[in-house]
Amino acid sequence: MKNTFFAISLLFALSSCNKVEPKKEIDLSTNKTDSIAIKNIYNSALTNGQSYQWLAVLSNDIGGRLSGSPEAQLAVEWGEKLMQDLKFDKVWLQPLMVPHWVRGEKEEAYIISNKNKFDIAICALGGSVATSENGVFGEVIEVISLEEAEQLGEKLRGKIVFFNRPFDDTQIETFNAYGGCVDQRGSGAQVTGKFGAIGAIIRSMTHSIDDFPHTGSLRYGDIPDNEKIPSAAISTKAANLLSEKLKENPNLKFYFKQSCKTLPDTPSFNVIGEITGTEFPEKYITVGGHLDSWDLGDGAHDDGAGIVQSIEVLRLFKLNNLKPKHTIRVVLFMNEENGLRGGKKYAEEAKKNNENHIAALESDSGGFTPRGFSFDSTKNNDLFLSWKSLLAPYGLHTIEKGHGGSDIGPLKSETNSIFSYKPDSQRYFDYHHAANDTFDKVNKRELELGAASMAALVYLLDTYLK
Amino acid sequence: MKNTFFAISLLFALSSCNKVEPKKEIDLSTNKTDSIAIKNIYNSALTNGQSYQWLAVLSNDIGGRLSGSPEAQLAVEWGEKLMQDLKFDKVWLQPLMVPHWVRGEKEEAYIISNKNKFDIAICALGGSVATSENGVFGEVIEVISLEEAEQLGEKLRGKIVFFNRPFDDTQIETFNAYGGCVDQRGSGAQVTGKFGAIGAIIRSMTHSIDDFPHTGSLRYGDIPDNEKIPSAAISTKAANLLSEKLKENPNLKFYFKQSCKTLPDTPSFNVIGEITGTEFPEKYITVGGHLDSWDLGDGAHDDGAGIVQSIEVLRLFKLNNLKPKHTIRVVLFMNEENGLRGGKKYAEEAKKNNENHIAALESDSGGFTPRGFSFDSTKNNDLFLSWKSLLAPYGLHTIEKGHGGSDIGPLKSETNSIFSYKPDSQRYFDYHHAANDTFDKVNKRELELGAASMAALVYLLDTYLK
Repeated sequence: MKNTFFAISLLFALSSCNKVEPKKEIDLSTNKTDSIAIKNIYNSALTNGQSYQWLAVLSNDIGGRLSGSPEAQLAVEWGEKLMQDLKFDKVWLQPLMVPHWVRGEKEEAYIISNKNKFDIAICALGGSVATSENGVFGEVIEVISLEEAEQLGEKLRGKIVFFNRPFDDTQIETFNAYGGCVDQRGSGAQVTGKFGAIGAIIRSMTHSIDDFPHTGSLRYGDIPDNEKIPSAAISTKAANLLSEKLKENPNLKFYFKQSCKTLPDTPSFNVIGEITGTEFPEKYITVGGHLDSWDLGDGAHDDGAGIVQSIEVLRLFKLNNLKPKHTIRVVLFMNEENGLRGGKKYAEEAKKNNENHIAALESDSGGFTPRGFSFDSTKNNDLFLSWKSLLAPYGLHTIEKGHGGSDIGPLKSETNSIFSYKPDSQRYFDYHHAANDTFDKVNKRELELGAASMAALVYLLDTYLK
Repeated sequence: MKNTFFAISLLFALSSCNKVEPKKEIDLSTNKTDSIAIKNIYNSALTNGQSYQWLAVLSNDIGGRLSGSPEAQLAVEWGEKLMQDLKFDKVWLQPLMVPHWVRGEKEEAYIISNKNKFDIAICALGGSVATSENGVFGEVIEVISLEEAEQLGEKLRGKIVFFNRPFDDTQIETFNAYGGCVDQRGSGAQVTGKFGAIGAIIRSMTHSIDDFPHTGSLRYGDIPDNEKIPSAAISTKAANLLSEKLKENPNLKFYFKQSCKTLPDTPSFNVIGEITGTEFPEKYITVGGHLDSWDLGDGAHDDGAGIVQSIEVLRLFKLNNLKPKHTIRVVLFMNEENGLRGGKKYAEEAKKNNENHIAALESDSGGFTPRGFSFDSTKNNDLFLSWKSLLAPYGLHTIEKGHGGSDIGPLKSETNSIFSYKPDSQRYFDYHHAANDTFDKVNKRELELGAASMAALVYLLDTYLK
């Protein structure tokens, strides 16, 4: 797109670039106090934002930070120091014990079919047991559901079970496609181990056809140790190749080797900061994301974005001299990915201390362009929906009942209203839990708009809730 | 974000991944025929889309394709053959003459200040004259507007004028920020040449602080040849450096050299294909983008995306066995970037042939996630606004009066309603007219959702307009 026609029409429509008053694109005439406060929040996030610079440190300097790892501890120290430097009213660490799973050496996998060898991009699933030192080698049975695997039953004995149900590309909201497939990753090993399968390999949880395997947690549940079989994700390209080769040769053999293991639980922390409320210091609004990430990438979108946006919410309040009536807390939750211990601990302590939590907000869907919020609330639904017109000018059109958030889920019993920030979901599963979830995939403005959107919601919650 | 909480709730809410009926996320109960037709369009675009694969060819194999270049001619041949292969009812070339500006050798620029030399990332603006073979070397005057330059008047003599007004980051819609700054690029040389300035260098039209200079057209208007001074864009990093160095040393010198030139006008073509209407074959709905692009990148977002999306609209009609009542035309317009000759020619021929154009739609804002449509229409505004509920499930929340499109602008006098497809704008100016506007910046799903959105709008226009 060039300049002429478009620019001419815009030049007439717009005030000059140099003036500082709010621009015409946002109608500030109704709900004037709120709309001006919200506009100021966005203006400061977009002209003087810090979230992107912080994310560069968390992603590039610290990197992937799985619970129990030295990087997770560095992230705790980074978060605590950052919030101290920002002079929040209180900053502290909330101790907890976390699972400590380590990946070990880089995994190996290949197909042998008609004497040809095809290398396969693979990664162990979080929580998986290792293979033996010689790896696992055997024939493959391809299935598209847990139910199909259950029906095959004893036919799985001695086989590697290959779960290959792809994302449903027709889902507009990509989390729905994820939700429709992730049972394979979560339970594939659990369901097939009892029939004597020797391994479970899972098509990666992504729309994208590429060579990045996507890790993530599995659950063995309470099955006996001898039924716990090693499980790994393979890239979508590898899954397509394997499926194609199986059609040519159902007796091909698959090899994989992984040396991951679960160490004893390790001490770690939620990192908490707060601005004390002026009117209701004993009533809390919590905003947070998770500080841990998977180990393959640097966790920029999942969930470095949510971490820096949550801290930025409090900074934007201070910067705009907004003195909240309620205490606003930011929580950098530890261990969302493979245990949710941080979310559970925070709720447990809130209950023990009889804290009065009036609302909570989580950002854990990536640092993409804003789309809205979903909320899970027992009251005030009409109030929340009435904020649509205030938020729509910023691309926040989807204000709807729905998911509240993983880390703040356990807090649900202590609060009436939990919210999830919803950025655009189209690119999220390109990177989710994979080696390409890296800082360069984050757009500065999209990240900053997300932080401002969260601050705007917290401003409204603080203003209108009692 | 991991699986447990979220996935469990989703698994209950969702039907299985394997079923093919429309999923619950779209309410098909009202306007049933339309909503099912639209859902089918999206389903086919997302599961069987071709736009991304076509864009790979146009971007990677042909590349940047400025009017008059051999690549532009290859793009014409590619577009014609593709539409023939797709068996559209008619495919033809519409001849026209286009400007033929060539960049020449790679540009050079540096600052000399206190005997230190700083290299500067630069590119000639489209339509600019060259410097002499020895380049331009002189002192710099920094300004932030055309008005400021006009006021300096004779003080500009012998100087290089540096236009450095940045994008207004507080604009949520980034095209507003562009519109507020692009007069510097378009008219900086024209305004300062008459005062004896020896060059005009322009801060790149982007929010992003990086080292990519962004080209684009300038206009000399009708000034005499001896007042036409060379003009170039410098990267935002270079602009910040130059501004900083000027504060330290207002007498620093700037050097730049470029060997661009304007050759005689060259024959080229609009590429046109159509599906003939079943009821009103003499009434036309046009959908298009521009086939030319700047030369620095491969023109993937600007406007390869619009080209492949427009062709995909017709393919999606055929694939879904939708037989339009009106004739649907796709037009690959030539020369939007530096002349708009294709848009003008198409409108001229439409007028000459007394064609009855009932609506037109353009995609020229990149291949990003859908946000909506703007329209410029003399009637049916309420009808268009009534489609909001049908389009909202696909992220198309912004259906509003506004810009209609550059290439279809000249057609305005022949039609009542011109529409512009509006994808999310946050990332557009990171790449616009720069070397990083390349295929790898395009997300497959975002591109496909855009094509489906355009097809959905054309379906509604065809269904409800007479």
